[in-house]
Amino acid sequence: MLIGKVVGSVVATRKDEKLANQKLLVVQVHDHSNKPKDQYVVAVDSVGAGHEDMVLYATGSSARQTTQTENRPCDAVIMAVVDSWDLGGANVYEKWS
Amino acid sequence: MLIGKVVGSVVATRKDEKLANQKLLVVQVHDHSNKPKDQYVVAVDSVGAGHEDMVLYATGSSARQTTQTENRPCDAVIMAVVDSWDLGGANVYEKWS
Amino acid sequence: MLIGKVVGSVVATRKDEKLANQKLLVVQVHDHSNKPKDQYVVAVDSVGAGHEDMVLYATGSSARQTTQTENRPCDAVIMAVVDSWDLGGANVYEKWS
Amino acid sequence: MLIGKVVGSVVATRKDEKLANQKLLVVQVHDHSNKPKDQYVVAVDSVGAGHEDMVLYATGSSARQTTQTENRPCDAVIMAVVDSWDLGGANVYEKWS
Amino acid sequence: MLIGKVVGSVVATRKDEKLANQKLLVVQVHDHSNKPKDQYVVAVDSVGAGHEDMVLYATGSSARQTTQTENRPCDAVIMAVVDSWDLGGANVYEKWS
Repeated sequence: MLIGKVVGSVVATRKDEKLANQKLLVVQVHDHSNKPKDQYVVAVDSVGAGHEDMVLYATGSSARQTTQTENRPCDAVIMAVVDSWDLGGANVYEKWS
Repeated sequence: MLIGKVVGSVVATRKDEKLANQKLLVVQVHDHSNKPKDQYVVAVDSVGAGHEDMVLYATGSSARQTTQTENRPCDAVIMAVVDSWDLGGANVYEKWS
Repeated sequence: MLIGKVVGSVVATRKDEKLANQKLLVVQVHDHSNKPKDQYVVAVDSVGAGHEDMVLYATGSSARQTTQTENRPCDAVIMAVVDSWDLGGANVYEKWS
Repeated sequence: MLIGKVVGSVVATRKDEKLANQKLLVVQVHDHSNKPKDQYVVAVDSVGAGHEDMVLYATGSSARQTTQTENRPCDAVIMAVVDSWDLGGANVYEKWS
Repeated sequence: MLIGKVVGSVVATRKDEKLANQKLLVVQVHDHSNKPKDQYVVAVDSVGAGHEDMVLYATGSSARQTTQTENRPCDAVIMAVVDSWDLGGANVYEKWS
């Protein structure tokens, strides 16, 4: 998994029927020191992530292992909202600070 | 998924039998601010995308989860035509503007 | 899928038994304007591609969806010989020109 | 698989139910001469790795082949703690030295 | 598949039980003209490759298609020892020369 920030959303009316009612969010990838990278992914949201939330997303076939995304043509899923992470014992990010 | 623009198409007569009647489109990848990247993919079209449409495509085994691409040797599928997307509440792309 | 040119072949006697009689070709990846990239892949040939043919190859689990490669430890397969492709209506490559 | 060092951990309360009780570690990727790379992954720990341990991690669907990660939306798993490795007969890393 | 050279090996005592008795080799990736790249992978050896052998390795779910690696948390497998390859009819590498 990689860490990213929810920065936007995508609207698509004409789509595969299996994608009906799936919220599609734009996630900007961050590195482990919380610096934004020049990389993004459009991911299905399976946990109710909000704008600017830091999230974990999974890709590939693993993105279809949530109940919500099973058997769907989806190669990236947000499967966790990050509360905090640390590096070497030092806090890097804290959602509720 | 990533966002891309349909910029061309590929003709291939000699191909695996499971690819018969699959439309193969050249998609140029765009970044989340809608700038073209130096990256492309040839994807099967499952939604009737048109020339210069902005689309979402899925890769890997997820590309075989549409009814059309099931069990086919296809590692990229267009599964949505993008209507619009925003970043931080600001509209980035609007198909019908 | 990506587009590439068949530029060579690999001989391997000692190999997994499931790879017996699989032709292994060296494919140089091209970009969508037909410029060679500094990237290659060794792919199983499922369509009888010839030297210098432009081909499409699929990777990952999708590379095992041809009848020939099913259940084999093969992560790249040539599944089409390209006749032509265009960008924005302009022909980029034409096999028979 | 790639080699990495455990450098941190991630806390996430709101997550897919299949991720309950999975320890999420931040792994910094190292190259084969043991130099840290500017690349990381968040992986589920299936072997009880400790802080600063050198580990092997597997990605993609292979990350779901441990008993612990089966069928979970997890695309990276730590499946071994590295004791040592060598290059050309010369020891590069030794855990217990 | 990509071509690489066996340059080392990894020892790991604490590991997922499905990895017991799997030889883990460090493979340095080479390009198609046989120049070493700044890229490596740790792969399970399914063919008895020796030190400095040029090999082919497969990644992802395809790495679990050998009898030896089936259902194991392994995302890279050496499935062939390369005897030789050519580019445009010119020999690039010959194991027995």
